[in-house]
Amino acid sequence: MSDTKILLKEKEMPEAWYNIQADMPNLPKPPLHPVTKEPVGPQDLKPIFPMGLIEQEVSRDRWIEIPDEVREIYRLWRPSPLCRARRLEKALDTPAHIYYKYEGVSPAGSHKLNTSVPQAYYNKKEGIKRLATETGAGQWGVALSQACSFFGLECTVYMVKVSYHQKPYRRSLMQVFGSNVIPSPSELTSSGRKILEKDPDSLGSLGIAISEAVEDAAGREDTNYALGSVLNHVILHQTVIGLEAKKQMEKADHYPDVVIACCGGGSNFGGMAFPFAHDKLVKGKKVRLLAVEPISCPTLTRGHFGYDYGDVAGFTPLLWMYTLGKDFMPPGIHAGGLRYHGDSPLVSQLVHDGIVEARAYGQTAVFQSAVLFARSEGVLPAPESSHAIHAAVEEALAAKEAGEKRIILFNLSGHGLLDLSSYDAYLEGKLIDYPLPEEELEKALAALPKV
Amino acid sequence: MSDTKILLKEKEMPEAWYNIQADMPNLPKPPLHPVTKEPVGPQDLKPIFPMGLIEQEVSRDRWIEIPDEVREIYRLWRPSPLCRARRLEKALDTPAHIYYKYEGVSPAGSHKLNTSVPQAYYNKKEGIKRLATETGAGQWGVALSQACSFFGLECTVYMVKVSYHQKPYRRSLMQVFGSNVIPSPSELTSSGRKILEKDPDSLGSLGIAISEAVEDAAGREDTNYALGSVLNHVILHQTVIGLEAKKQMEKADHYPDVVIACCGGGSNFGGMAFPFAHDKLVKGKKVRLLAVEPISCPTLTRGHFGYDYGDVAGFTPLLWMYTLGKDFMPPGIHAGGLRYHGDSPLVSQLVHDGIVEARAYGQTAVFQSAVLFARSEGVLPAPESSHAIHAAVEEALAAKEAGEKRIILFNLSGHGLLDLSSYDAYLEGKLIDYPLPEEELEKALAALPKV
Repeated sequence: MSDTKILLKEKEMPEAWYNIQADMPNLPKPPLHPVTKEPVGPQDLKPIFPMGLIEQEVSRDRWIEIPDEVREIYRLWRPSPLCRARRLEKALDTPAHIYYKYEGVSPAGSHKLNTSVPQAYYNKKEGIKRLATETGAGQWGVALSQACSFFGLECTVYMVKVSYHQKPYRRSLMQVFGSNVIPSPSELTSSGRKILEKDPDSLGSLGIAISEAVEDAAGREDTNYALGSVLNHVILHQTVIGLEAKKQMEKADHYPDVVIACCGGGSNFGGMAFPFAHDKLVKGKKVRLLAVEPISCPTLTRGHFGYDYGDVAGFTPLLWMYTLGKDFMPPGIHAGGLRYHGDSPLVSQLVHDGIVEARAYGQTAVFQSAVLFARSEGVLPAPESSHAIHAAVEEALAAKEAGEKRIILFNLSGHGLLDLSSYDAYLEGKLIDYPLPEEELEKALAALPKV
Repeated sequence: MSDTKILLKEKEMPEAWYNIQADMPNLPKPPLHPVTKEPVGPQDLKPIFPMGLIEQEVSRDRWIEIPDEVREIYRLWRPSPLCRARRLEKALDTPAHIYYKYEGVSPAGSHKLNTSVPQAYYNKKEGIKRLATETGAGQWGVALSQACSFFGLECTVYMVKVSYHQKPYRRSLMQVFGSNVIPSPSELTSSGRKILEKDPDSLGSLGIAISEAVEDAAGREDTNYALGSVLNHVILHQTVIGLEAKKQMEKADHYPDVVIACCGGGSNFGGMAFPFAHDKLVKGKKVRLLAVEPISCPTLTRGHFGYDYGDVAGFTPLLWMYTLGKDFMPPGIHAGGLRYHGDSPLVSQLVHDGIVEARAYGQTAVFQSAVLFARSEGVLPAPESSHAIHAAVEEALAAKEAGEKRIILFNLSGHGLLDLSSYDAYLEGKLIDYPLPEEELEKALAALPKV
């Protein structure tokens, strides 16, 4: 029997990230300044980002070298394993082969550490002493806390207040790594105070927390801001996932028919799929790329393609992307990482151009597949990652129906050990799917900024 | 730079477990029947254990083959990585090399799955439909739940009531794998009812939960009992850890000067150390074997060496071991897996014969090393495993003091992601060390059974 896990040696770890901007038939339109609505230049981003990352954001080079200092930290958990889900295949009685790349082996428990490490590195290199960021459920906050701890940077995390109280374990984990975790909205920023004046009991939101973190970073010389998804340089860093997976699929002597990942801000999907998109765009390979999102926040499947702000307050540049409108408030589904009104401009453009497919599911079906996966393969998946699992299950059943040996590859972006209360809700039959009603979508889209 | 992680291929996974009974200069005295006080035979154990495991319990064969069906499941996560803790070495500024074997990569998050899988397998093979067990903090309950799910067995877990309510995540995790989790004491067994009659608000204890699970298994033809530590066959299964670690140390071109593991019931320590004890006993290798326990439950360092019961009710055979007395109630330290009055007879005998060293620490020092380890290496360790980390740190600092390149190997038996409330307590300065007062020890030992 061939191996269950396909491993790479540390020396087989990628030496460069892949930049899809070199190969896209159409690039997204440039980000616009939130006030002047003119294209933003490096000087607009300098108050909150280091030049190393700004250069990556706009680079058209196909390959960008991974610094040794970053590779050294990556080696704590990378290369991550590629696993053949044989027991899941058996449970589904499918002729398909199901492979999954497992990013939950990172100390942060998710793929987020792939970008928090280089972000901390470039900031440190340019003399920054402290990073500010926001976090919802806490995956990103944990990853940035660890990266800052590795490089000796201070870290302040504005955590959405309701999560701060409901997800105490992720808060604790950030504190173990020395971060200062602040429930948002807070009294520390003017945007926080403004919200609290109107509503002292505000539970907070990701949009508010972004505004607070950006304000914090913009106001202090020694402090920059860090973002866990959406931006080009973030996805660039995540391409280590897909680059490794390609080498591992080669070792397994297979090329995937379909590559699947869940998609919130797009960094997990892009990180997995872009190296395969390269084969499709440059080498003419036939490979389907499938981004999966929740029906309650159907950005790629039902959103508008155009300019929108990244945050609620309108502090960030306008990005060219699929969006449900910055004021759209997604319902409280358990895949907190997929509750974002917008999406990566790169992923959005590729969906618009028909290079990437998108599909949306309700969370009940997603959790059903998650439990099937756990009972077959042992690993408890994160609710976000379970969207990809459900798509893989659908593809495997379609292959069975068609009687074909389809090769399915998906990214298991993280484990769900700190999401167990969500599994309780599923097992107790308490999950609600929240499909977005047409009239609510229309209302949300009517509020889009005029550019 | 040499690799950070030393990996084995799946085909390098051990094909047999190592049975130290073949090599011990003195074997422990035999278990005695709890009522007759005569040595127990296989027929006494048959009502609750399958013959496959009973044979392993008493076998003197040095090598016992691992069945293919068990190896197939092991391959979901084994071989586990051996990691060089370079960043920890740097933080300690020590000439020592620190290696750790990481068992937290198992789907259960700990080494416990190494034995729950073969236990489920042998029971399934002998026609058993259902297993009953107890769990305290939940590590063992999770591992047995997963193993039963893999082999299609039903699983009932009697979970100490206070943990059932305080550790809801581990309870949920068992339920995701389909187990029936019952807060103990319960109305389902006569031992449970007896306790509840006296004290309806009883928070339960491991000793009570064992009594309930044994009673459940003894009373049903289709049901057996499973234990997560202490017994010979349990430690036998865990030797995959040390056998892999030996191969990995060879690849790293080093032999350890000291092998360290935490010790509660002994399965984690024995699993790691016994394959190295083989080298010491048979090949005359100079290697120190160090078992680490809490000062609040100092079984090996301050206990009595003699016969005692394994549970509170006195249902189990009398075992020849170090014990603090079955009625000793350890204080509520955070390393729940180390709160056991007794210890493995095999480990106890080796300590008594001077082949294994034992050392005890207070939990404050242990958590201090745990946080240092997390910030250096990324991985958040379980409180139990952190006892081994603290010993490794002490050894590394002693090596620095002596100016010698000591080779230190320890077992990181599990991650601490479901123990984050313990880290909160540490960060808030709320940990208490609870050294066992002499008069309390004397009182506990005075209650030992007369044999």
